[in-house]
Amino acid sequence: MVFLIYVIVKPTRLLCFCSDRLEFTQLAADHRAVNLGQGFPDFSPPTFIQEALREALSGGYQMHQYTRVFGHPPLVRILAKFFGRIVGREIDPFEDVLVTAGAYQALFCAFQALIEEGDEVILVEPFFDCYQPMVELAGGKTVHVSLRPSQKVEGSGVPSSGDWVLSPEELASKFNPRTKAIVINTPNNPLGKVYKTEELQVIADLCVRHDVLCISDEVYEWLTYDGNKHVKIASLPGMWERTVTIGSAGKTFSATGWKLGWAISSVHNMKNLKIIHLGSVYQCPTATQEAVARGFEREYELFGTPESYFQQLPAMLHQKREKLASCLGAAGLQPVMPEGGYFMIVDLSDQSTEDEPKDFTFVKWLTKEKGLATMPVSTFYSPEHRREFSQYVRFCFVKEDSTLNAAEDILRKWSQTQ
Amino acid sequence: MVFLIYVIVKPTRLLCFCSDRLEFTQLAADHRAVNLGQGFPDFSPPTFIQEALREALSGGYQMHQYTRVFGHPPLVRILAKFFGRIVGREIDPFEDVLVTAGAYQALFCAFQALIEEGDEVILVEPFFDCYQPMVELAGGKTVHVSLRPSQKVEGSGVPSSGDWVLSPEELASKFNPRTKAIVINTPNNPLGKVYKTEELQVIADLCVRHDVLCISDEVYEWLTYDGNKHVKIASLPGMWERTVTIGSAGKTFSATGWKLGWAISSVHNMKNLKIIHLGSVYQCPTATQEAVARGFEREYELFGTPESYFQQLPAMLHQKREKLASCLGAAGLQPVMPEGGYFMIVDLSDQSTEDEPKDFTFVKWLTKEKGLATMPVSTFYSPEHRREFSQYVRFCFVKEDSTLNAAEDILRKWSQTQ
Ligand SMILES: Cc1ncc(COP(=O)(O)O)c(C=O)c1O
Ligand SMILES: Cc1ncc(COP(=O)(O)O)c(C=O)c1O
Repeated sequence: MVFLIYVIVKPTRLLCFCSDRLEFTQLAADHRAVNLGQGFPDFSPPTFIQEALREALSGGYQMHQYTRVFGHPPLVRILAKFFGRIVGREIDPFEDVLVTAGAYQALFCAFQALIEEGDEVILVEPFFDCYQPMVELAGGKTVHVSLRPSQKVEGSGVPSSGDWVLSPEELASKFNPRTKAIVINTPNNPLGKVYKTEELQVIADLCVRHDVLCISDEVYEWLTYDGNKHVKIASLPGMWERTVTIGSAGKTFSATGWKLGWAISSVHNMKNLKIIHLGSVYQCPTATQEAVARGFEREYELFGTPESYFQQLPAMLHQKREKLASCLGAAGLQPVMPEGGYFMIVDLSDQSTEDEPKDFTFVKWLTKEKGLATMPVSTFYSPEHRREFSQYVRFCFVKEDSTLNAAEDILRKWSQTQ
Repeated sequence: MVFLIYVIVKPTRLLCFCSDRLEFTQLAADHRAVNLGQGFPDFSPPTFIQEALREALSGGYQMHQYTRVFGHPPLVRILAKFFGRIVGREIDPFEDVLVTAGAYQALFCAFQALIEEGDEVILVEPFFDCYQPMVELAGGKTVHVSLRPSQKVEGSGVPSSGDWVLSPEELASKFNPRTKAIVINTPNNPLGKVYKTEELQVIADLCVRHDVLCISDEVYEWLTYDGNKHVKIASLPGMWERTVTIGSAGKTFSATGWKLGWAISSVHNMKNLKIIHLGSVYQCPTATQEAVARGFEREYELFGTPESYFQQLPAMLHQKREKLASCLGAAGLQPVMPEGGYFMIVDLSDQSTEDEPKDFTFVKWLTKEKGLATMPVSTFYSPEHRREFSQYVRFCFVKEDSTLNAAEDILRKWSQTQ
C-alpha cells in the first residue's frame, strides 16, 4: 500500500517520493485528531533561544541581509568549537562546517555531493523516509539491512529499542566494491535506538576496511534517556575523514519551524557538499543563524550543568515518555521503550490482521474513528521489507501533557470497549 | 579568467561553479571597502514587515514548529490572490504555488524538475550567474543569446538599459527541437532592463510555437523607474501553462537575509517542482512565512496607493539611482541608466586595456587601491562571450545615502588624479 502521487521520471532514474507521510499528516488535519503523528513539539522553544532571535532581529540591518554563504561566521565558529570538544579534535569553522536549510537539506547535499551514478548506499532500516528517494535522486542504489529485535530478549522484560540490533554478519555481507556510503541515524527515528560504542565500532570497522563513507544523522543527539549516551561515530579512530555528521537546530532547540541545520566533516568531503549548497540554496537566514549561535554559546558555557537545555529537555521528555508508555500499557498496547529521540513504537501483534498492512489499517482507523493520529512504522522500511515490519505504530511523545492526557483518554475508552 | 575552485564531477556532467562572485565578495570584505558590489540593501526592511515577524514569533508554539511542506497556508493564499489579480486569472494556492528557501531554491527546483539530460536551455545574457551551473547540474545544456546595445541609440542621448535588446532573428535561431526552456530575468540583474510587452511577446510567440517553457525570474518586479512597467510573461496568451514565475520575499521587502521565495505556475509544472522541494529542503521557516504573508496582505490592501511599500521603495531607489549616476558621471564614468532593479552598469570603454578582462582589472584595482567594491559584468556572461562584454562594471545603488556619499568621495578623488 504505497501511494506514489509524487513520481518524477529522469532518463536515468525513476524517483518515487512515497507520499505516506504527507497523506497521514493530511489525515490528522482533516480529522482534527489529537496529534501524536508528526514529529514536532506542540510547545514553544525555550525562552533563551526565543530571546536570542528577538535580539538578533533588533540588531541592525545586517541581521536582515545576506550573510556568508556557507554559514554565518558566529554560527560556524561555535559549532566547530562545540563539536570539536565532543569529538576531541580541532574542527575548522570555515572549512569543515556547512550551515543548511534544516538537517534535511544537509542530507540532500551529502547525497548529491558524495553519491555518483550506480553507487550503492546501505540504509539501516527502519530509516527516516527521505533517505531512499534522496539517494535515488543522486543516482545511487539503496541496499537495506534491518535492525531486528534480538531473540534472547523477546518476551522477557520490558521491550526496549536497545533490543533492536544489526546482525554483524548480515551487515558485513552488504559491503562490496560498489558500496559508497552507509547511513545511520542515532538516536533513531522511529525506533528510539541509541547506538552503543561497540555497535558503532562494528560499522566503523567495515567503513575503514572497505573505504566507505558514513552519513550520520544525529538530529536527536541531545535526547537520550536512562543514562544512555549518544556517541558520535566521527569520534572513532579513522572515522573523522569518513563521516558526514548531520545536525538540526530545530530538534536541538525544540524549534522545528526554524529549519536550520548543518553538516560537519573533513574539508575533503565538505568541498563537494558546498558546491551542492551553492547550486541549490546558496545561503541560510541570517538572524536565525545568529540566534542559534547564541544558543550554542550559552550551552557551551552551561554544558553538563543542570541549567543546560541539553540536560533539561531530555529530563522533561523522559517524563513524557513514561507517561505515554504507561497509558499505552494500560490500554493493552505494548510499547518498545525508546533510549532516545522523539518517538515510541508500539507492537500491534495482538491486533487483528487485514488485507492492508496492519499498521496502515490501525492508524487510519485510530485517526478517523477515535481522533488520535499516529504514524505507521512500515513507511520507514524499504518496499521489500514493509510486510515484515507492519505490526508497529509510531507515537510522538514530545507533546504538552494536555495533549498526552487527551491521547490517554482516547486510549482508555478504546481499551474499555475492546 | 574564470576561477574554478568549486568543481564537481558527476559521471554525466562536469559542474563548474565559477567562484567569481565569492571571490569578489571576499575581496570587498578583506579590504573593508565601501561596498557597492553585493546586491543587498545596507538598510533595514520597512517597520511593518519587521513588526509582522516580531508578532509572528510571539504568536504561540505553532509559529516555531513545522508548517505545511509546500508553503504555509496564509502565505500561499495571499500569493495566489495577489498574483492572480496581476495575471488576471484564478491561481490555486494549494496547487500552483510553492514556497522555497529563497528565489534561489525556486530556480533550483525549476531546473531540476523540468530539465532532463540533454535538454537545451536558452539563457539571455547577461544573466544571474547561477543559471548556467544549475542547468548543468540538472543535466541540461545552456545556449546563449545576448542583449546588445542597439546601434541607433549608441552615442546619442543618455544610454539606458532599454537600449539593450535581443535580435528577434538571433533569438529565433536558438530554438530547435531539443530546446526545453528559456530563462528570462526582468528587471534584469545586472543590466536593469525591464522587458516591454512587445519584447515579451516575441519570446512568448517562440515559446508557444516551439512548445518551450519560460522560467521567468522576477525577483526585482516591484522596482521599476521612470514609469517603466513590469509585465509578467505568464499573463500573455498561452503562457500561463508554459511559465514558471519566480519571486523573492528578500528583494520584495528589502530583507535579503530572510531567504524566502516562491515559484508560481500551473499545477502540471508544479507537481514536478514540488517533488524536488520534497527531495531537497522539504519545508520553509514558519514565522518568516507568516510575516511575509502579512506583508503581502498589507500591500494587497494598499496596492497603488502612496502608502504602499511597492510605491515607496522604487521612489526611494529612484533617488539613489540618480545620485549614483550623477557621481559616476562627474567622475567621467558613463552609466547605463537602469529601468529597474538594484544595479547600474558603467561602460569602461575609455579606460586602458590589460591582459585580464578590463572589468576584472578595474574592479580589483578599485577595491584594493581605492576601497570601493563593485562587480565585473563579464561574470554574468557565458565563458564564450565574456571577452566581448568585458568593458562593463556593475554598481549596486540600494545603499544608504552615507554609503553612496562615501563612494562619491572615492570616485571624485580618483577622477581628479586622472
Ligand atoms: C531522522 C531525521 N533527520 C532529519 C530530519 C529533518 O530535520 P530538519 O527539520 O532540521 O530538516 C528529521 C525530522 O523529522 C528526522 O527525524
Ligand atoms: C536575478 C536574481 N534571482 C534570484 C536571486 C536570489 O534571490 P533570493 O535571495 O530570494 O534567493 C537574486 C539575488 O541576488 C537575483 O539577483
